[in-house]
Amino acid sequence: MALKYPDGRPFQQSTPLSRSKRTSVQYGNRGMSLEQEINETNKYYRVNGIAVIHKKPIPIQIVNVDYPKRSAAVIREAYFKQPSTTDYNGVYQGHYLDFEAKETRNKTAFPLSNFHAHQVDHLKACVAQNGICFTIVRFTVLDELYLMPAATLFRYWDQQTSATGRKSIPREVIAAEGISLQYGLNPRIPYLDAVNQLIG
Amino acid sequence: MALKYPDGRPFQQSTPLSRSKRTSVQYGNRGMSLEQEINETNKYYRVNGIAVIHKKPIPIQIVNVDYPKRSAAVIREAYFKQPSTTDYNGVYQGHYLDFEAKETRNKTAFPLSNFHAHQVDHLKACVAQNGICFTIVRFTVLDELYLMPAATLFRYWDQQTSATGRKSIPREVIAAEGISLQYGLNPRIPYLDAVNQLIG
Repeated sequence: MALKYPDGRPFQQSTPLSRSKRTSVQYGNRGMSLEQEINETNKYYRVNGIAVIHKKPIPIQIVNVDYPKRSAAVIREAYFKQPSTTDYNGVYQGHYLDFEAKETRNKTAFPLSNFHAHQVDHLKACVAQNGICFTIVRFTVLDELYLMPAATLFRYWDQQTSATGRKSIPREVIAAEGISLQYGLNPRIPYLDAVNQLIG
Repeated sequence: MALKYPDGRPFQQSTPLSRSKRTSVQYGNRGMSLEQEINETNKYYRVNGIAVIHKKPIPIQIVNVDYPKRSAAVIREAYFKQPSTTDYNGVYQGHYLDFEAKETRNKTAFPLSNFHAHQVDHLKACVAQNGICFTIVRFTVLDELYLMPAATLFRYWDQQTSATGRKSIPREVIAAEGISLQYGLNPRIPYLDAVNQLIG
């Protein structure tokens, strides 16, 4: 059965790659979700002692739990809650990193509707504490991948309610202000190279 | 119905304090769990722009979800997973903070069984990335509260498998190597004051 988030995105639990998938090497987007690719990348960074970045668990409101004898507790009624923070955070060479990963099928711009207001507020609060904040954006159809600094998001987010405000960030702006990411074999999405540019 | 974690600890969802509770000012341990007190403290730090620290959601393995028409998705079967990281992390003045909060009714020592091996591994990996890592320890019966640096935990954790190894950290060691925390009104547990000492 296909599980979905309340907003309609498919729910994908991270599973190790099967051998057949692992041996058929293809570069570029290998049909994995961006989330899976970031999770693989983070695992590579962790295992190699490069950075400690985790995806946060999905927040759930638990209503009812069964305690069957001699077996594990079963949650029988629970609901998805809206996350109050971003999906990823962690530490890299003393820096606090905090980011979202988002895909769009749009070819010309990245819709701001991909963010909730409290996620942007969270990123602003982290930047105020000198955290390194960004979004990894994938234009799925174009197969383009960028690290977009939080400042670009904030500028477009804050202007969207003005009279001339637009509801998306143009692709050219992301290409100009962001850092292009190229797929690799290991790590799949070497976003820390872009973070080094952001810091340096 | 009382919910419990698989290890028997009671599950407490954070709820806002009722007015009656808020007006009866008592110092010291006010019958709240340490987790509730840390959550209140973090909220104070966030609202006042002092630091951005969150408790991570409980990791859940989702097996079955219902999608009733015209109402929210309901998780019908899910299981508690063992967390792979600590409960709290975030950013404070450019520093990455990562910690656990643990209570014991033991009066003479803090049992190492309060930690899982992968939590200690996680803390070691974060320290290697120059994160600020510690445990907030409460001796419930003594009503004593300490910020214990990660180094103390690591030393005792690593010796426990040796021939003369002990399975707990003596209270005197925590008192000597840690920083005593005093309850306040707001924030309830001003642990960032201790973090300043740790950094400085």
